[in-house]
Amino acid sequence: MTGKKKYAQASVEAMYRVFTVPEAPESTLSRIDQDISRNLAGFLQEHIVAVERDLSDVEKYFSDYAIPEKPIFVSEQAQFLLDNLVANSVHTASPSFIGHMTSALPYFMLPLSKIMIALNQNLVKTETSKAFTPMERQVLGMIHRLVYQQDGAFYRKWMHDPRHALGAMCSGGTIANLTALWVARNRAFPAEGSFRGIHQEGLFRALRYYGYEGAAILVSRRGHYSLRKAADVLGLGRDALVAVDTDDDNRIQVDALRDKCLELQKQKIKVMAICGIAGTTETGNVDPLEAMADIAREFGAHYHVDAAWGGPTLFSRQHRHLMKGIEKADSVTFDAHKQLYVPMGVGLVVFRDPSLASAVEHHAQYIIRKGSRDLGSTTLEGSRPGMAMLIQSGLKILAREGYEILIDQGIDKARTFAALIDSQPDFELVTRPELNILTYRYCPEEVQRAFAMADPAQAEKLNTCLNRITKFIQKTQRERGKAFVSRTRLEPARYNHFPCIVFRVVLANPLTTQEILADILEEQRLLAADPEAADEMAILTQTANSILAGQALTNKRA
Amino acid sequence: MTGKKKYAQASVEAMYRVFTVPEAPESTLSRIDQDISRNLAGFLQEHIVAVERDLSDVEKYFSDYAIPEKPIFVSEQAQFLLDNLVANSVHTASPSFIGHMTSALPYFMLPLSKIMIALNQNLVKTETSKAFTPMERQVLGMIHRLVYQQDGAFYRKWMHDPRHALGAMCSGGTIANLTALWVARNRAFPAEGSFRGIHQEGLFRALRYYGYEGAAILVSRRGHYSLRKAADVLGLGRDALVAVDTDDDNRIQVDALRDKCLELQKQKIKVMAICGIAGTTETGNVDPLEAMADIAREFGAHYHVDAAWGGPTLFSRQHRHLMKGIEKADSVTFDAHKQLYVPMGVGLVVFRDPSLASAVEHHAQYIIRKGSRDLGSTTLEGSRPGMAMLIQSGLKILAREGYEILIDQGIDKARTFAALIDSQPDFELVTRPELNILTYRYCPEEVQRAFAMADPAQAEKLNTCLNRITKFIQKTQRERGKAFVSRTRLEPARYNHFPCIVFRVVLANPLTTQEILADILEEQRLLAADPEAADEMAILTQTANSILAGQALTNKRA
Repeated sequence: MTGKKKYAQASVEAMYRVFTVPEAPESTLSRIDQDISRNLAGFLQEHIVAVERDLSDVEKYFSDYAIPEKPIFVSEQAQFLLDNLVANSVHTASPSFIGHMTSALPYFMLPLSKIMIALNQNLVKTETSKAFTPMERQVLGMIHRLVYQQDGAFYRKWMHDPRHALGAMCSGGTIANLTALWVARNRAFPAEGSFRGIHQEGLFRALRYYGYEGAAILVSRRGHYSLRKAADVLGLGRDALVAVDTDDDNRIQVDALRDKCLELQKQKIKVMAICGIAGTTETGNVDPLEAMADIAREFGAHYHVDAAWGGPTLFSRQHRHLMKGIEKADSVTFDAHKQLYVPMGVGLVVFRDPSLASAVEHHAQYIIRKGSRDLGSTTLEGSRPGMAMLIQSGLKILAREGYEILIDQGIDKARTFAALIDSQPDFELVTRPELNILTYRYCPEEVQRAFAMADPAQAEKLNTCLNRITKFIQKTQRERGKAFVSRTRLEPARYNHFPCIVFRVVLANPLTTQEILADILEEQRLLAADPEAADEMAILTQTANSILAGQALTNKRA
Repeated sequence: MTGKKKYAQASVEAMYRVFTVPEAPESTLSRIDQDISRNLAGFLQEHIVAVERDLSDVEKYFSDYAIPEKPIFVSEQAQFLLDNLVANSVHTASPSFIGHMTSALPYFMLPLSKIMIALNQNLVKTETSKAFTPMERQVLGMIHRLVYQQDGAFYRKWMHDPRHALGAMCSGGTIANLTALWVARNRAFPAEGSFRGIHQEGLFRALRYYGYEGAAILVSRRGHYSLRKAADVLGLGRDALVAVDTDDDNRIQVDALRDKCLELQKQKIKVMAICGIAGTTETGNVDPLEAMADIAREFGAHYHVDAAWGGPTLFSRQHRHLMKGIEKADSVTFDAHKQLYVPMGVGLVVFRDPSLASAVEHHAQYIIRKGSRDLGSTTLEGSRPGMAMLIQSGLKILAREGYEILIDQGIDKARTFAALIDSQPDFELVTRPELNILTYRYCPEEVQRAFAMADPAQAEKLNTCLNRITKFIQKTQRERGKAFVSRTRLEPARYNHFPCIVFRVVLANPLTTQEILADILEEQRLLAADPEAADEMAILTQTANSILAGQALTNKRA
């Protein structure tokens, strides 16, 4: 240590302290830890979604753009986070936060997460993950079996086979879908004769070699936007994501799908993949998965099912029939931070055939060498955390029975809420829940009656007013912070395919009660009567009344 | 609630308990939490990298492939994890774990992580992240400024601008590199005339429209394997990743780079991107970033710098000159779970020009609508956790000064270790450290002397023996569990470009002492004398001796 400058010696010691485990339970860090726990418990017990505060106001706390020169105390930063970040975050675990797919966590996830963070394993290779690698393989095996129901011999052979993987764990559904479509693309244009495969030579030469003008991915209009993103990333272009019409229940029209495949075939465009959806993001519907499998087979296309939301429906004896045909998929996406109730962000894709992942296999000299057990050779990501630990914990602590209760409850609650909306004269259900998602809007009774007898121009006028009102109610309710529903835009057949803005509700939090749901409707009704919405409401009422009176509004206003 | 079955009512209550915050500090969950903390503290204080145990043995704990039907207690699962997972994981924070880029964490990351896990925010949209969104924008701004040093007006204008993003946060360097190259690819073939852009029409039409035969990404032979993966994913094919020769210090040869660009141009292949490396994964060298910028400009290519490892060198006044030219990059990758000392897994890419990210912009109806502040519109991933919170905490608690100490210490320690290796007659340094990474191998003095006078065939024979011995020592040392260095394969010019297997050392843990490093050499020396290595050592010694005696080994063995 001779020859070192004095400041360097002092700083070595400072760093040593920062990286050393604090032994004493009465240490400052332990005290901070307890403060944080208390504060978080308080936050999580409140039933407020978010404090009423404009985001541009919150930005003030995060306006420094220079990395500070001098260190601050951990206690100071903890206080800063509690005051400015926690206090201004969204209470995604609140029972009245029913607008998105981010829900409450089982509380045991918190202490168990500590193990994951403290061990800081890296799943790319066994050298930095050891036992975490077989654990992740087990989780992939369990989800594979949930979907594909292979026998014990299958899993004993493949689950821990170093040269194969039953799937790929990743940060979420988007990467899971991208991984599946990457595999699909590479399988569609394999090495043959003088062509060394698309993975090696790229899409341009692949299409030239195989004599195609393009490659397409087919999915219903309700497909998740990540699929369009994947088409872009994979070099196919967003046009290659071909949206197929749905029926009134937001399920893909199988005949239209087949027609589209035939049409593409005529245009010399390779039908590369067909994607079924098991739980559409906006309406929670499930495509006819079995019929789609047949079409995929007919056209030699990779069959992918995006079950990011709906996959865990397989836990429910009562509802798993909705997933019929999923076992025919070549690949299936699951999101663990959705209905497996694991913290953000982890998803996975499972492959029916254990050899599928080899289409995207990569190696390097210092890790993921051939023949190693390293999981990193077939994942899109490199370094990855040990989130599989939390999935395993959920699967063991809640078990199939626990997840079944969560699924059954959610669907049940959605049906009850749908019935409640049906029973209110001033609301209308837009999509009836198949899983635990529904959409609706505020629409006074006379407007509903007027809509039924309106000509297209009048109906469009009513709809435009309703859209503005729905948007106003949704935004204002969110800003008030007591409850949160999201909004989206649908084009329902029964409203002449007009773009309809609707409230979207996701019922995945077991703590959400019927009383809370009734209160949400009540607040929305009050917001519809808010002075700020008065002008729009006046036009709406006037338009409706004039339709009902058989007079054209245009005459009246002229 | 009438009409519900009794079991359903009971299970509703069970679920209510699981999702409700346990209030009492003496609750079972609090006790489990404390047990976990104690156990982890014990694990982290041990200086053992891993217990000696074969992975196939550990797999037995993870052999169930069926999701359990019945729930188990949290305490039972916690005990299972402590006994089977924690006990068999790799102690990446051990000061003698110096083989990979996964290092110790500052201990304050643990309590602060709890905030992130408990709040379970989703950064894809402000509706599920609120204050976390401006915080993430701040972190992107801070890293942007660290790299590009723009003035206050720049950050006040752009940092919180809802229509722009100064970068994209993601799960790690692989996705960061892929995002940068996705942007590069889409910018290389933009909409023009009748062509609606590669993002819309895909690579096949893009190349046809622009009259190219392909598109290439150029990087040195030491480029990270994620770049080849990105070339595959993006539809360019792995061949499109053109590896350029390096000089003796593993830095790209600028003349060779320029020649390669000219050659590609002649072949009508678009030079789409040039990647500089700021800290090669295997040897820690930094490309001549400034000279590469000039070439990228000359050929109109996107200039990306992969600073996943070396980026934080910018914190050091003493060493930041190594990064000169990084500020000319269009995009720069940083890995936060590497030298920002944040838990696995988070990385980011920053863009010099705030409009760059628009090349990959996506929108959806229910989130990331145009004009929203949602960060999800320009990220490859969808749902993402609030890891930015931990980066911000690191930047404030350690501050520039703290990170500077870590960087300076690491480089200093690598130089000291290199000097130690140099001073040992039976080891040889293969790559001299520029940052905090070096490679070396065990090589007895007489073998070194023999190598110097050997003909190519003899040298190759020596090298093959040395490779086997290095591999044996590295594997056995890892299995023994006291210390861990990794291994990789290099082709150094001074060893006739033979593939040399070498020990690779990454010195990023401030707790690693010179004593530990000396012990690691000592254990390796003992392993070289291990009976299991005796046959190989005998051949090596024999070969060396016969070279030294001026006699061909072939004669002797015939």
